[in-house]
Amino acid sequence: MPQLRRDPVTRRWIIIATDRAKRPQDFVNESQPLAEAFCPFCEGNEDKTPKEIFADRNDGSSTNGPGWNLRVVPNKYPALQVEGELDKRPDGMYDRMNGIGAHEVIIETPEHHLSLTDLTPEQITNVLWVYRDRLLDLERDKRLAYGMLFKNVGAAAGATLEHTHSQLIVTPVVPATVGHEMEVASDYFQYRGRCLLCDIVREELDAGSRIVWEGKSFVAYVPYAPRFPFETWILPREHRSHYPALEHAEAQELAVALKTTLMKIESALDRPAYNYMIHTSPFGTDPLAEYHWHIEIIPRIARVAGFEWGTGFYINPVSPEDAAAFLREIEVKPDGKKRKKKKPATKKHA
Amino acid sequence: MPQLRRDPVTRRWIIIATDRAKRPQDFVNESQPLAEAFCPFCEGNEDKTPKEIFADRNDGSSTNGPGWNLRVVPNKYPALQVEGELDKRPDGMYDRMNGIGAHEVIIETPEHHLSLTDLTPEQITNVLWVYRDRLLDLERDKRLAYGMLFKNVGAAAGATLEHTHSQLIVTPVVPATVGHEMEVASDYFQYRGRCLLCDIVREELDAGSRIVWEGKSFVAYVPYAPRFPFETWILPREHRSHYPALEHAEAQELAVALKTTLMKIESALDRPAYNYMIHTSPFGTDPLAEYHWHIEIIPRIARVAGFEWGTGFYINPVSPEDAAAFLREIEVKPDGKKRKKKKPATKKHA
Repeated sequence: MPQLRRDPVTRRWIIIATDRAKRPQDFVNESQPLAEAFCPFCEGNEDKTPKEIFADRNDGSSTNGPGWNLRVVPNKYPALQVEGELDKRPDGMYDRMNGIGAHEVIIETPEHHLSLTDLTPEQITNVLWVYRDRLLDLERDKRLAYGMLFKNVGAAAGATLEHTHSQLIVTPVVPATVGHEMEVASDYFQYRGRCLLCDIVREELDAGSRIVWEGKSFVAYVPYAPRFPFETWILPREHRSHYPALEHAEAQELAVALKTTLMKIESALDRPAYNYMIHTSPFGTDPLAEYHWHIEIIPRIARVAGFEWGTGFYINPVSPEDAAAFLREIEVKPDGKKRKKKKPATKKHA
Repeated sequence: MPQLRRDPVTRRWIIIATDRAKRPQDFVNESQPLAEAFCPFCEGNEDKTPKEIFADRNDGSSTNGPGWNLRVVPNKYPALQVEGELDKRPDGMYDRMNGIGAHEVIIETPEHHLSLTDLTPEQITNVLWVYRDRLLDLERDKRLAYGMLFKNVGAAAGATLEHTHSQLIVTPVVPATVGHEMEVASDYFQYRGRCLLCDIVREELDAGSRIVWEGKSFVAYVPYAPRFPFETWILPREHRSHYPALEHAEAQELAVALKTTLMKIESALDRPAYNYMIHTSPFGTDPLAEYHWHIEIIPRIARVAGFEWGTGFYINPVSPEDAAAFLREIEVKPDGKKRKKKKPATKKHA
């Protein structure tokens, strides 16, 4: 059973998940490439993943068999598990609980050679809609407090499989990063009576210099003080605290916003490793006046060194205004059809 | 001039340092190896660094020439610069100031092929003593608020040069990570009237299961909830808030503690990339009852992925008790003499 432990110095929670471990002496340096040999996410290999939680299936296909467009399965090596009791308790002067939660994988397409930006806006809309459905479903488990949706692309971003997928980890406590953001936002709201990110959207649209993409309901921009070169955030222009309140027409525009932004980043940086994370409100909360959900996209082209770990400062060698101007100027066609199938030898993320 | 900008969502400060930048289109993936061609830190290449701030020199040698054992120079590509005014100001709804500070490099030995653990305890004592001297010197500049000493070893840890060195970045604001730690420690102290890390030292010495090394004045242990496999902290057993209050006999023991711990980690993980960071109290503060300086050592054998970036949670596949037991059992001889010089072809960090 994984264990949640809290570090009293930083108040950060850590998951000790030794089932995922090799023996200590088997640890190797982090420069290993992605495994290529066999892909458990490809169509035809459905028996190599745990049983599916959801699948968008073609008529006549069988559960856990081929014939699907999108598939959600439990992670085979979960950081947290659904079965069991939380059993919160002290441990000497420290605090721990059992690692209860969920860890799911959203396999975005059956085709191994495609990346998220190769999918049509309709396919990406389905991915974003499944994100919503999974949050709504898991929120019903009253032991659980928060759902973090994220995507790792490329070995430098922590991906261990190449086949395009997203992940959802649901935790029994609100994560420190989100909790801190909510405290800051609440503090801002108490003083001004306005949502911080609503103010930022207004400021960015007025200034224009850091805008990457602008639609009817969403905007993509490089933050004023980004941690990483070409970091870009996407958020609803109107105030929305909870991702699952997304309407279907909004999901369609968000798919275009996400695909466009990622295509621009891939073009600018020659298909870099990247992560994106969706920050939304905790489970079981009503609409919040002070919190605003958003997607953070971070290209992983710079290494994090001792100064960043020690201080929380980041040294960014590209001004956000330069990065945004560069991304704005790149022309992409997000509504294009799926690319022609390539042979594995030409896979872009290999 | 570098610029400090504050992100209002996280209240984190970011350094925009475009003088260090390539053009956006020159960015490459992070998997580049360390440059090997030419080393500006080697003896004989003193004219390839900015003019030295301090050097431990042999009799008869000339400033900025060969004949030294340890050398402190300004970073050639500084994240912050000493010259200029802070010029704190609003920027629309945001906050910024000029990037005033200091960025120094401590070259720990003239010999390229040695790592820190190849140095004698006496040599490491000199390194630790120079850390102290540089903090005391820079603290006299009233514009500056905090000095972060750190070391990056290996490309995966953000090192760009192989020759063993540490860095000191001095910032005009207290970094978020340290500020948060101090708030947590202050909160603990207000409730209990005791220092949090003093309590942790007692708890760890009583439990014993996470202790890596124990001396008269210092102890090394794996924290109860570490972010990374084999993360190890070293701290004074008695309450000490400020690193520069170190006495020389303590520096001698700390050198043994640091060398022993790093040798054990290098042995356990086959010389991994790692960072260490020294967390001490801000400049211009009197001894603090609630803060306790410490060194955090983080082996960089796991990649940080979207979940960690999004939540501040870390998934650690090795239990701290297993890691500590493994490190305890490794026998090392920290008081050995410098290793016999090897040819560059056998360099361990290549």
